[in-house]
Amino acid sequence: MNREKLIHILEDLASGKTDVKSTLHCLRNLPFEDIGCARVDQHRALRKGFPEVVFGAGKSTEQILLISERIVAQGGPLLVTRVSQEAGDALTERFPNGCHDRLSRTFHLILAPVENLGRGMILIISAGTSDLPVAQEAALTARLMGNRVEQLVDVGVAGIHRLLQDRKLLDEAEVLVVAAGMEGALPSVVGGLVDRPIIAVPTSVGYGTSFGGLAALLGMLNSCASGVVVVNIDNGFGAGYAASLMNRREHT
Amino acid sequence: MNREKLIHILEDLASGKTDVKSTLHCLRNLPFEDIGCARVDQHRALRKGFPEVVFGAGKSTEQILLISERIVAQGGPLLVTRVSQEAGDALTERFPNGCHDRLSRTFHLILAPVENLGRGMILIISAGTSDLPVAQEAALTARLMGNRVEQLVDVGVAGIHRLLQDRKLLDEAEVLVVAAGMEGALPSVVGGLVDRPIIAVPTSVGYGTSFGGLAALLGMLNSCASGVVVVNIDNGFGAGYAASLMNRREHT
Amino acid sequence: MNREKLIHILEDLASGKTDVKSTLHCLRNLPFEDIGCARVDQHRALRKGFPEVVFGAGKSTEQILLISERIVAQGGPLLVTRVSQEAGDALTERFPNGCHDRLSRTFHLILAPVENLGRGMILIISAGTSDLPVAQEAALTARLMGNRVEQLVDVGVAGIHRLLQDRKLLDEAEVLVVAAGMEGALPSVVGGLVDRPIIAVPTSVGYGTSFGGLAALLGMLNSCASGVVVVNIDNGFGAGYAASLMNRREHT
Amino acid sequence: MNREKLIHILEDLASGKTDVKSTLHCLRNLPFEDIGCARVDQHRALRKGFPEVVFGAGKSTEQILLISERIVAQGGPLLVTRVSQEAGDALTERFPNGCHDRLSRTFHLILAPVENLGRGMILIISAGTSDLPVAQEAALTARLMGNRVEQLVDVGVAGIHRLLQDRKLLDEAEVLVVAAGMEGALPSVVGGLVDRPIIAVPTSVGYGTSFGGLAALLGMLNSCASGVVVVNIDNGFGAGYAASLMNRREHT
Amino acid sequence: MNREKLIHILEDLASGKTDVKSTLHCLRNLPFEDIGCARVDQHRALRKGFPEVVFGAGKSTEQILLISERIVAQGGPLLVTRVSQEAGDALTERFPNGCHDRLSRTFHLILAPVENLGRGMILIISAGTSDLPVAQEAALTARLMGNRVEQLVDVGVAGIHRLLQDRKLLDEAEVLVVAAGMEGALPSVVGGLVDRPIIAVPTSVGYGTSFGGLAALLGMLNSCASGVVVVNIDNGFGAGYAASLMNRREHT
Amino acid sequence: MNREKLIHILEDLASGKTDVKSTLHCLRNLPFEDIGCARVDQHRALRKGFPEVVFGAGKSTEQILLISERIVAQGGPLLVTRVSQEAGDALTERFPNGCHDRLSRTFHLILAPVENLGRGMILIISAGTSDLPVAQEAALTARLMGNRVEQLVDVGVAGIHRLLQDRKLLDEAEVLVVAAGMEGALPSVVGGLVDRPIIAVPTSVGYGTSFGGLAALLGMLNSCASGVVVVNIDNGFGAGYAASLMNRREHT
Amino acid sequence: MNREKLIHILEDLASGKTDVKSTLHCLRNLPFEDIGCARVDQHRALRKGFPEVVFGAGKSTEQILLISERIVAQGGPLLVTRVSQEAGDALTERFPNGCHDRLSRTFHLILAPVENLGRGMILIISAGTSDLPVAQEAALTARLMGNRVEQLVDVGVAGIHRLLQDRKLLDEAEVLVVAAGMEGALPSVVGGLVDRPIIAVPTSVGYGTSFGGLAALLGMLNSCASGVVVVNIDNGFGAGYAASLMNRREHT
Amino acid sequence: MNREKLIHILEDLASGKTDVKSTLHCLRNLPFEDIGCARVDQHRALRKGFPEVVFGAGKSTEQILLISERIVAQGGPLLVTRVSQEAGDALTERFPNGCHDRLSRTFHLILAPVENLGRGMILIISAGTSDLPVAQEAALTARLMGNRVEQLVDVGVAGIHRLLQDRKLLDEAEVLVVAAGMEGALPSVVGGLVDRPIIAVPTSVGYGTSFGGLAALLGMLNSCASGVVVVNIDNGFGAGYAASLMNRREHT
Repeated sequence: MNREKLIHILEDLASGKTDVKSTLHCLRNLPFEDIGCARVDQHRALRKGFPEVVFGAGKSTEQILLISERIVAQGGPLLVTRVSQEAGDALTERFPNGCHDRLSRTFHLILAPVENLGRGMILIISAGTSDLPVAQEAALTARLMGNRVEQLVDVGVAGIHRLLQDRKLLDEAEVLVVAAGMEGALPSVVGGLVDRPIIAVPTSVGYGTSFGGLAALLGMLNSCASGVVVVNIDNGFGAGYAASLMNRREHT
Repeated sequence: MNREKLIHILEDLASGKTDVKSTLHCLRNLPFEDIGCARVDQHRALRKGFPEVVFGAGKSTEQILLISERIVAQGGPLLVTRVSQEAGDALTERFPNGCHDRLSRTFHLILAPVENLGRGMILIISAGTSDLPVAQEAALTARLMGNRVEQLVDVGVAGIHRLLQDRKLLDEAEVLVVAAGMEGALPSVVGGLVDRPIIAVPTSVGYGTSFGGLAALLGMLNSCASGVVVVNIDNGFGAGYAASLMNRREHT
Repeated sequence: MNREKLIHILEDLASGKTDVKSTLHCLRNLPFEDIGCARVDQHRALRKGFPEVVFGAGKSTEQILLISERIVAQGGPLLVTRVSQEAGDALTERFPNGCHDRLSRTFHLILAPVENLGRGMILIISAGTSDLPVAQEAALTARLMGNRVEQLVDVGVAGIHRLLQDRKLLDEAEVLVVAAGMEGALPSVVGGLVDRPIIAVPTSVGYGTSFGGLAALLGMLNSCASGVVVVNIDNGFGAGYAASLMNRREHT
Repeated sequence: MNREKLIHILEDLASGKTDVKSTLHCLRNLPFEDIGCARVDQHRALRKGFPEVVFGAGKSTEQILLISERIVAQGGPLLVTRVSQEAGDALTERFPNGCHDRLSRTFHLILAPVENLGRGMILIISAGTSDLPVAQEAALTARLMGNRVEQLVDVGVAGIHRLLQDRKLLDEAEVLVVAAGMEGALPSVVGGLVDRPIIAVPTSVGYGTSFGGLAALLGMLNSCASGVVVVNIDNGFGAGYAASLMNRREHT
Repeated sequence: MNREKLIHILEDLASGKTDVKSTLHCLRNLPFEDIGCARVDQHRALRKGFPEVVFGAGKSTEQILLISERIVAQGGPLLVTRVSQEAGDALTERFPNGCHDRLSRTFHLILAPVENLGRGMILIISAGTSDLPVAQEAALTARLMGNRVEQLVDVGVAGIHRLLQDRKLLDEAEVLVVAAGMEGALPSVVGGLVDRPIIAVPTSVGYGTSFGGLAALLGMLNSCASGVVVVNIDNGFGAGYAASLMNRREHT
Repeated sequence: MNREKLIHILEDLASGKTDVKSTLHCLRNLPFEDIGCARVDQHRALRKGFPEVVFGAGKSTEQILLISERIVAQGGPLLVTRVSQEAGDALTERFPNGCHDRLSRTFHLILAPVENLGRGMILIISAGTSDLPVAQEAALTARLMGNRVEQLVDVGVAGIHRLLQDRKLLDEAEVLVVAAGMEGALPSVVGGLVDRPIIAVPTSVGYGTSFGGLAALLGMLNSCASGVVVVNIDNGFGAGYAASLMNRREHT
Repeated sequence: MNREKLIHILEDLASGKTDVKSTLHCLRNLPFEDIGCARVDQHRALRKGFPEVVFGAGKSTEQILLISERIVAQGGPLLVTRVSQEAGDALTERFPNGCHDRLSRTFHLILAPVENLGRGMILIISAGTSDLPVAQEAALTARLMGNRVEQLVDVGVAGIHRLLQDRKLLDEAEVLVVAAGMEGALPSVVGGLVDRPIIAVPTSVGYGTSFGGLAALLGMLNSCASGVVVVNIDNGFGAGYAASLMNRREHT
Repeated sequence: MNREKLIHILEDLASGKTDVKSTLHCLRNLPFEDIGCARVDQHRALRKGFPEVVFGAGKSTEQILLISERIVAQGGPLLVTRVSQEAGDALTERFPNGCHDRLSRTFHLILAPVENLGRGMILIISAGTSDLPVAQEAALTARLMGNRVEQLVDVGVAGIHRLLQDRKLLDEAEVLVVAAGMEGALPSVVGGLVDRPIIAVPTSVGYGTSFGGLAALLGMLNSCASGVVVVNIDNGFGAGYAASLMNRREHT
């Protein structure tokens, strides 16, 4: 351990085993050196309570397989996002017990039953059918991280009654994730109805001046409802992850 | 008149009073020349059913007074928008019967009672208190152009119930103008409730990523509700003007 | 129907068939619950006077077929926009009486003759040949919604005479839709000529600094002509829809 | 109360005091009408667990005073953000027991001791001295909403050791708010160290390509650390509010 | 003069007054050195046919006076653009024969009658009253550079007849400068009418989505009319300068 | 021809072959009607001195062929820009005497020798090899429009000596077209050397922050050299066209 | 000094003056703790070879004075950038031996002669007079950090000969800093002439589409010359700092 | 040589072999003419110390081969960047001794052993696996230019300990290149740790609001760490080149 090592070094100096100069050299970057001998992935699980998640976009299938195998070897669970068809097939072949979900473009593999770590329920709301992949990615991430998850779909603001009739579900949620494209107004409306944190996820659904989700993002950042926080465009994983942290019963 | 003048020219040629060459020269741009002798302002009132409106921003008080006097001389009504305090004072001094409205930063002067030219009522909705100047400019414009106008204030989407309780007013409107800043989501919600055209006016209310109204503008252009059309940021006048055209009983 | 159902519930209470408690339960959020157990689309037709329109982009052919069938089952009319060749073929196979218009990339199916609901004629103007798909989408939408529609093509501002010679058509229109790409100047010129509302549709036609229609959009939002309102880039459907609302003889 | 009123109406019908028709009329849109006759602010406190907060920017001192008085009259607490010197002076004169904090540009008034409603501690971190006003606004908001708050200042990423030495505080926090301008990298570094939700607040501190906080905002939205969520530029209030919701022991 | 000086040096060598070595020293990188030890401005007049023009913005009054004096000392003409009131007063005091034009914010001083160097007439068109300062700067620059200049004002596209009636003037122009703000559509319309080069000058006139002239700039760059070229926003000087080069009878 | 046709109509009236009424009918809005019943292109040739040029992008091969045939039928010359391989093949098959230039992606067909209409030489400069297609489009356009054209390639500012050694060619040019991508600095450097108008063409050559030519465009618009005017990104045709107008000996 | 202090602590332990436990306490996270209880700046001087520089913008005069005093107390040198007139006066009053340079808006105070630490000369080039403040900030920073600095002013690309005649100075420089606004082309031209690293500093000099230095920034990032690196807009300090690091004879 | 030629010309004049006029003509652009007769590529190697590097993007395989052959013919070394698979195959066939590196998409060929020209080691750091291609391009460029290069991979800020444990490598580097996508925070953290120049390379790794590397670029330009300079997005070559210039022992 760090502290022991430090004591050891100082005792060597006190006892004359080393001199000031070499101790000085030794102390220079000490607090970090020790951390270095741990494994990257292991360490993240320790620090963050969940192992590294593989972002599949821009990685070759070979790279994805390699990293996945290391995570599985350390006990998982394994979650790969932005999985192409090719990578999904390769992962399925390599891990036949895993699940390749085409809608959310994820692959995951659980090596042990997921324990419920949450205080309450996470509600994932999507404004339209086309926002479903992002919502699904959030839902899957939250479930893998030990949360009870409910979903509400196709409740965009142009038909506000669809949302209002599920008010009970809204009120029961501990944390809400709201995925919406186009004008991204749904989080504001939901935010006006509940007293729980809302994670708004802009999606790239839209055309023209939606600018690939920018309009939705700006709408959400400027929400007139309090309690709305925002993640990157199409970042369902990030929303599910943050929702899990918010819902977690206790520190890891 | 144009047609008479044209006949005249041709008769001169037919009767030998002129020759082909000079007639040719005379005909070159004929349809426009005639229009030229009319007055700019008069002509606009003829073409558009309302005289030129003075956009006060970027004009000196002297220029504003000069143009205003010409419009008044031709029977008005006079409407000046974006009036500074200084210009408003000068206009009030020059036209003591006029009205300088500080909220909407307009000055107007009616020389004859405004006749109701509309089919129904125009409803002007503003999301927050800070959107009122823009809404007021729209309301005043629409009233000056001969419309019955109602207003609904402070009904932003973060408290959707405030809007829903005035549903009757929404249903009665022939045309709706909705002014909102920040995320600009109100037109979408209103658009989901009524079957009349909605003119969305983004306002520059907000900060940070509102980018001076850009977030609201994008939100409105990407509205998932059908029947929503958009004007420039803070363009209350344009919204009131367009609403008037939509509400007008018959062609001018 | 909604109203009938509500009356029925209340009559049951009045006649003692149910008690206050169960009626109370039944009425909780009634206006929404009722809609919930009915179909989303039905309700929209009630509220907006036209059933839900299927935005085909980003939906799988299966999803499009599924939604289309539900709309047709409820009496239609069916309108699908942004139809890919594949989806168009599938729709044609499924609804042989429907029409797949490749130019506007729409599919529509009418189950009953379209009744003329409009006060006058809607004129759809397109600046160039390449703007035709957007103009056509607007025209088709407006026709399906019960309007008389005329079209004027290839009358861009670089040859202003082409527009001026059809001035009579301009004057007859009750509402005008103007689709233009590149600098998007046509709505301003048209707006200076007529006293009716103009719905400007920026198109993504252009290159370089047209930025996918942004230049045209900004041009239209900054139009110096009054009475010009704007919809999203390439949103022919939205323009046709809004024009229909403006032209509609009476509230639905 | 709402429910009581509804029961009353139904009992009247059940007992024959009214008939179906008038009850029907009475029920149309009922859930909102009732809210309408109550106060806007009251309702928000009910729905969200905290009364309306006054956003002072763009409101006249008179408007701020007026709204503040209504909130105080209903028991407060009162929180006004973006308070100008002039408005602060007027508020201080009107509410001598209140506190005008010049650093965060807020005014608040507590009418009753603030009860601790939180599960744990909220840690507010600011990258540089210039980010302090935003951090302070967040801290003040969170304290007013019943949370224990700690602050860590001047721990920007260019001197990462300053942050690392306070690791214990980081680990103890239930929720973290991180305010940073310029490149906005601090939330990513903090996010890599803790397993709790992090609310990143971009500040407008910087120049040139900071574009008024846009660089920091983009940095935070693209954070490679999981669990980071973002609010609008300089939105210290929103961050403090959201942190309160995340830290709250139970639903209001 | 530069050329004379060069001839002089060579004649001295030819006549034996100097030797090769000292001439060599004198000529080292002659085109530059000479300019270096002489005046920057002289060389520009040689290369470009007009002395350096002083861009007044961002320079202190002292700097402006200093540079102006050097230009006047070398025979002028002197043209200072973007002149503040203070700088204008100082220049007027220093050069009582000069002219401080407040509309175009320029100061100029002619030391000798300006010779007409142009092939024909340069026509400067401005869309609205607010575009006049920019148009005036262009006109003044072109006149100073030896051109016959005509101006056409307030002929925006919303009243296209105003432009068409001056078609004759359009046809006579050798080069046209068109200044317009807002949607910047005027150059396109003019460009469709004439067969001469058109220099489009976007102005910062407008608000909201005009983005300080960006909308006009984009409109002009995307002009569907051929023969339209563009300069920077509000760059009246640049337009007048380029028009002069295009109109110049022969190379300088 | 148009003018001949008009003279003919008037002569018929003068000679009594027709009467005023039928001539009147014939002349109704003559400049337009004539164009209407004849071809759009004819009129443009009259107004602008060159027939319509076909912008091939976004047009089907069928549309391109159709329009091309009409232009050829009226005497041409035919110029089609942005020609795809497919369209180029179809055009070549249809017009075997035409020329499909793959570098500039143009197709042209001359039916009569091109007469030199210019005062001097147009010099087309390109900064790098990748800018050649745009430069070539400009050169070809200018040649087709009756100009003597010279080209200078690969003379980017990173090797300024390459440009300087061709100074003589620079000095001889009547008009210069400078195509450059990346930072687009070449027009500034050229502009400092000559006293003739320079048409700067930003190209989309580059990556990352070149943003598809935006960096070059901004560089050119902000050129510190006077006499530089700008066209749209990659608009070689527009540059060649404008250069032709500037170089033209006399009005058409 | 920090290093001395550390040696001292260790020597005390080695000589038995303290024991392991108290040394341990003293060293706990030494690199940080020391900084924490001592001064932030000390550590930076150790790590970076230069003490913290005070960025004056957005800090109150009181804050600036406070921080400055701490830096001076530790031996300086003191450098404050973006100094307002007020702050400059206060600093001058507090440190009468310091120098408030109004051009570069800096204040500095040297407590000991600056030792030359550089391998060669740093050349600071500015394109125009208005770029001088930024260039001066760079020069002053580099001088304070122990470098020989030369400056070259007003050598913009529109008069390329002005640069070329100082070629010798260019060749002698070890590192070059080039400050330019508007199109920012100068670093490209310089980059083509030398074989040393060039730090390009975009300045906010310009108007319209210069967008506050964005045009210059993009130009520099897209430079076709190799060896050009870029800093933030107007970041003269950063350029001077980086140049110092590049020129430094050996590691600190 | 230049000087000799100049002396010769002047001697001719002194001796009467030529007259003033022809000498004048001859001297006009002399310093450039001479440069002209050298080869472009040769000259760059002379000026910059490294031959022209072929930017493969946007060039045909034929063009790449042609240019490569010329460079090889002059002794190389040859470096081609952005090599497509096709171009890489063709280059490999033509130069079997060359190396096509698929990761960095480069091709290079060394004709002679690369001499170490650097003062020390260049350290190339990449934040994530996906940034490797850019880092590799930088490393390869630096090695080809005669530098000792070390690499550090996958040390993103979300796991700051990974970086800290390699602190020794950081301290040894003479120049550091840091490639990072997403929020681009790594250079700031590294910049806080070392006293050497850091070249930050934003990569296009990311999605949504990373806007193709813009977020990373802005983060790096706004770095709160001194000594960080920036190159274009994905410009690994530029970073390696600049690092080489900074590391070079002496002027070429």
